[in-house]
Amino acid sequence: MMIERSVYKSVGRNEDATGIARRVAQISVSAIKQMPVLASRVEGCLSLGQGIPSFATPPFILEAVIEALRTDEAIGKYSLQPGMPRLKEAIADRLRNAKGIQADPESELFVSCGAMEAIAATLSTVVERGDEVLLPSPNYSSHIEQILFAEGVPVFVPLIEEEGWKLDIDGFKNKLTSRTKAIVLCNPMNPTGAVFSKEELLALAEIAVSRGLFIIADEAYDFLIYDDLPYFSLASIPELRDRLIACFSFSKMYCMTGWRIGYMVASARVIDQVLKVHDAFAICAPTISQYAAHAALKATNGLDGEGDRFIKTLIKELSARREFACARLDMLSHLFHYEKPRGAYYVFPRIVPEGVGDMDLALRLLYEARVITIPGSGFGPTGEGHVRISFGAAREDLNRAFDRIEDWAGIYK
Amino acid sequence: MMIERSVYKSVGRNEDATGIARRVAQISVSAIKQMPVLASRVEGCLSLGQGIPSFATPPFILEAVIEALRTDEAIGKYSLQPGMPRLKEAIADRLRNAKGIQADPESELFVSCGAMEAIAATLSTVVERGDEVLLPSPNYSSHIEQILFAEGVPVFVPLIEEEGWKLDIDGFKNKLTSRTKAIVLCNPMNPTGAVFSKEELLALAEIAVSRGLFIIADEAYDFLIYDDLPYFSLASIPELRDRLIACFSFSKMYCMTGWRIGYMVASARVIDQVLKVHDAFAICAPTISQYAAHAALKATNGLDGEGDRFIKTLIKELSARREFACARLDMLSHLFHYEKPRGAYYVFPRIVPEGVGDMDLALRLLYEARVITIPGSGFGPTGEGHVRISFGAAREDLNRAFDRIEDWAGIYK
Repeated sequence: MMIERSVYKSVGRNEDATGIARRVAQISVSAIKQMPVLASRVEGCLSLGQGIPSFATPPFILEAVIEALRTDEAIGKYSLQPGMPRLKEAIADRLRNAKGIQADPESELFVSCGAMEAIAATLSTVVERGDEVLLPSPNYSSHIEQILFAEGVPVFVPLIEEEGWKLDIDGFKNKLTSRTKAIVLCNPMNPTGAVFSKEELLALAEIAVSRGLFIIADEAYDFLIYDDLPYFSLASIPELRDRLIACFSFSKMYCMTGWRIGYMVASARVIDQVLKVHDAFAICAPTISQYAAHAALKATNGLDGEGDRFIKTLIKELSARREFACARLDMLSHLFHYEKPRGAYYVFPRIVPEGVGDMDLALRLLYEARVITIPGSGFGPTGEGHVRISFGAAREDLNRAFDRIEDWAGIYK
Repeated sequence: MMIERSVYKSVGRNEDATGIARRVAQISVSAIKQMPVLASRVEGCLSLGQGIPSFATPPFILEAVIEALRTDEAIGKYSLQPGMPRLKEAIADRLRNAKGIQADPESELFVSCGAMEAIAATLSTVVERGDEVLLPSPNYSSHIEQILFAEGVPVFVPLIEEEGWKLDIDGFKNKLTSRTKAIVLCNPMNPTGAVFSKEELLALAEIAVSRGLFIIADEAYDFLIYDDLPYFSLASIPELRDRLIACFSFSKMYCMTGWRIGYMVASARVIDQVLKVHDAFAICAPTISQYAAHAALKATNGLDGEGDRFIKTLIKELSARREFACARLDMLSHLFHYEKPRGAYYVFPRIVPEGVGDMDLALRLLYEARVITIPGSGFGPTGEGHVRISFGAAREDLNRAFDRIEDWAGIYK
């Protein structure tokens, strides 16, 4: 089998950065965003690219919003800047009941425009120019951009791929310097689908505590774990209380990506500072989305609420899609070698043929097979030679996309 | 008359900034946000404080959103990062038809989480650490915070109060240095209610062009001008094309403050850079709010659309409230001296009694008269000795609030 070096070019953006501040000029637009732009010019392609599952926001949330639109004028107005009190209380209840995490709704959490805003605001708050921030490699590319925006230095600690993208605790220790300020950790992980074990997380927490580092945890996929694997949240480590900034989202759990709503839990001291950034960028999270989020939590009692049933069905369906995607990848073993994901809806296979770059492969898959994948090098140095495949698409689309890849790959067999 | 020095304390926030980056630690929480927090502990107070008018989002927008919630699954999902194409086209149409501004919807505008996100992202994009940013004083406090966040130096140019808060063009020229990078201008203006003339704006534009500065224009109140005063937008100056970053909002025009939706117009080169920040903080503006904004624009044809009628009624009612507020202020001339606002819904009176600080007065009005006003010193040095009064509240509330102030002020007569 042979795959020639791609003849395709990546998307070109305006690179004239005259008069642009360093914090922004140095950020290169991630491949995750480039691919859909390129793909929009390729007719009829199927996406294994972006992290949007095929599911719609469920009716019990929509109907609650419609009801409020008809009866409650406040839905169109600013909320208090840290969020609606009743939503903050519902969030505190959920944290306590579902995860055993105690957070004062008044002072230790706030409602953000998705986990992304919370993470960006947090990194801007704790990272001074030149500070080093440790993060696994590969890692969700937005975190890298957010560190660069804060003028920090991303310091990559490669994950151990052959052990299912495990954390390399010694690797973290080896990268510590006097400038190390924080650790960013996404768990369950985008793009590898890894779920870190309690042992790994406790070891990481120990590093943070002993060195006085902040840990910024992105737990947007916290509900999406397969095979009944136990889930351990960094937020349940008491010693980390003052050092942990945990960011959560409604986007994935309730299929609400477009509503831009999430929340952050941290010490009151840190929340007070991060709120300054939240105020400068957002004023408040969209009020209508706060109503939607409140409806979502109200329907989720941990037992048999409509929200619980919806989430259960979602996990079951995504679990089936994972099996399906893995089965199809097994048939492409001359092209991809992968570690089975344990959470989220991504798999991050290594490209088997030697000398084939991930951008090259992704561009050929786009133009020749008409399938969108995300080249791995956008996720940090260890991402090179890999692609990210999302199995969030509808089964029929997944099936057709893998058919196309198989047909295409067959030429080179 | 005598007003004693206030015995009340301002709100105390956690000021331990250990480990917090300078860009955030140096921002002090503005009085605009402190007052509502203090007020939430005072029972039954009336607000002349925050910039939320009493109007609800109009039904023609709500019904369009309800229809979409029932029929269009895409409403719950991420939009393209710069915004929904049909919304961007509707914005470009409106800019062309209502203002004679040409902007390519593909490359020269993007949809933001309110004008605030656009301005914060822009200042972060063009302001390097240590760059100086000129802005009038008084000025909307969030702009000051956004400049500080970008590690820029706010350089205040006092407005000429006795000429209706006019721009001091020579003042701007005198403050230019080799580090001057940009000018921020809110027009119509928060907090003074000033509307700058074409001559003032052309003179400012000339400074920007000759010195190669960016102008960041906050035109959130662009529709709200009284007495049929002509309105001139910086965006209609062709020579400023590459230097102007104009930010607009749906919040005030369609009473959509809670939806967090606005847009920015600039050169393609600048938009490409600002989108990196938008992506890191927001991914995309809330999709449901983009549907609402699209419905708003669709109903606004510049003639007799439902949107036009709504806006016309809004202006008429706010104009009446302005007259009312001014009449009541006339009766309080021993306490306040004011310049009549020409746009927006703020008036920024000077406190007449000597030696009475604006924070002291605002706190006494809050605790003794149970009326919320915003102390002026949060709006820059020239704001000292003033308070901001919003006349966006319902007439009955305005009436009762001024009754209370009159009763309270009577004690000291």
